Amino acid sequence: MLYLVGLGLADETDITVKGLEIVKKAERVYLEAYTSILLVDTAKLEEFYGRPVIVADREMVESSSDEILHNADRVDVAFLVVGDPFGATTHTDLVLRARELGIEMRNIPNASIMSAIGCTGLQLYSFGQTVSMVFFTDTWKPSSYYDRIKQNAEHGLHTLVLLDIKVKEQSLENMARGRKIYEPPRYMTVAQCAEQMLETEAERKEGICGPESLAIGAARVGAVDQQLVVGTLKELTKVDLGKPLHSLVLLGTKTHELERDYIRRFAVDTATFDNIWKKHYEAKS
Amino acid sequence: MLYLVGLGLADETDITVKGLEIVKKAERVYLEAYTSILLVDTAKLEEFYGRPVIVADREMVESSSDEILHNADRVDVAFLVVGDPFGATTHTDLVLRARELGIEMRNIPNASIMSAIGCTGLQLYSFGQTVSMVFFTDTWKPSSYYDRIKQNAEHGLHTLVLLDIKVKEQSLENMARGRKIYEPPRYMTVAQCAEQMLETEAERKEGICGPESLAIGAARVGAVDQQLVVGTLKELTKVDLGKPLHSLVLLGTKTHELERDYIRRFAVDTATFDNIWKKHYEAKS
Repeated sequence: MLYLVGLGLADETDITVKGLEIVKKAERVYLEAYTSILLVDTAKLEEFYGRPVIVADREMVESSSDEILHNADRVDVAFLVVGDPFGATTHTDLVLRARELGIEMRNIPNASIMSAIGCTGLQLYSFGQTVSMVFFTDTWKPSSYYDRIKQNAEHGLHTLVLLDIKVKEQSLENMARGRKIYEPPRYMTVAQCAEQMLETEAERKEGICGPESLAIGAARVGAVDQQLVVGTLKELTKVDLGKPLHSLVLLGTKTHELERDYIRRFAVDTATFDNIWKKHYEAKS
Repeated sequence: MLYLVGLGLADETDITVKGLEIVKKAERVYLEAYTSILLVDTAKLEEFYGRPVIVADREMVESSSDEILHNADRVDVAFLVVGDPFGATTHTDLVLRARELGIEMRNIPNASIMSAIGCTGLQLYSFGQTVSMVFFTDTWKPSSYYDRIKQNAEHGLHTLVLLDIKVKEQSLENMARGRKIYEPPRYMTVAQCAEQMLETEAERKEGICGPESLAIGAARVGAVDQQLVVGTLKELTKVDLGKPLHSLVLLGTKTHELERDYIRRFAVDTATFDNIWKKHYEAKS
């Protein structure tokens, strides 16, 4: 049996009791370690599980899935995924391959940022489609996310923006020379995301995510030091929410008063928040 | 401290290790028991936790929240919520009241149907806003959900439809007479939901959820007997997915080929699925 086990969002104790039992008993345990991270390292997980864990990078999952699935028709293999196994990144490829090999699969759900973002106090019912934000470079500043935010905004909906992480990436030069040397990991911050959104707005000028758009920055959701901060995108370019992972929610204009009451206490500056609320949101909420 | 602890979706072992530690140590433990249910009863939870659990119905949470929050500034109180504490139903009222009383709050996230529905193999990125479907009566058939599905459909997005549950409801007569006699619980099935969607479509006639619209019925997500079935809404009016809870996803026209490959094996009838896919979805995907 192939078990896809969600690990939740923060540390080793966010696994479910059901998930932990499976991890303890499985023949082999893989940790998917390239689309998201926990806030603790693999050694900590191994200590907590009382067993070794094989770190599976993108190359392994995409090119050597048969190695992961080896004899899983007879023994139990656990594939651990930060968040929910079918959350922000799905592993349908792996499951489709398992099906081809006649291997049964079971899924152990857990918290995903895509629902845990409800901790902001915003109604999950009022979110449109989720978008992701990649690191801009000098020559590559993709803005397709802007069109999707616009579609959500047309109906006054919130947008969850998931921020890029770069783990085990090669520089172009190292890649070209086939050198397996990896860059240090990078995690986009709320401030960087807000900056990039303003950059796209300055180019597109459709009033979707400008300096006076309200947004919520969320850091380390589910951890003891979880942090939420509410402000205009301009204000958020200045905030430091500390260690990863960060996410951002762009507020829809149909924000309910109860949502406003809940988020107001996280305002960078309450006077600015009240001001902007009155100016752009109140009449539409 | 007030702890909001998510219980996940299926049984007592879906609580996280972190959540379980809190439940074991808290002074009092409440179980929110009116917006969703686990597939096991309270006695099973009490046995697993090794302690008593106070069942909190809607009346208690809405009218007697101060009783729940009593002395939570000095002792730990755990408030258990099926799914994620800020998932489909948020408990912002309770948290706002706790803030007023100067009580700190911590949130222990868990799987919510709003992200666990990714187990269908559909990309969570391709979902628009979630809607809920209430039980129609002879005189009350609200169709505002139809407008929201339409907004999602305009952009080819999937829609998650959460199905009504009626727990501890009074009949109008008993309510009028102030008799605390409750009706047996009712849980909407995928078949009933499909039926109601066709009823609204017959009235509205905008081609949003007709007899040839493809949808996925999901039952008991995360449980050993989790079940997924794919078919037209007309086909789904005939399926029996067994015990609660059920959910439904209306497929967007931008369904990706990889999504199609994944869901095809759950088809009520593969020939019909292929046919309808070719007719209405392929060109747009």
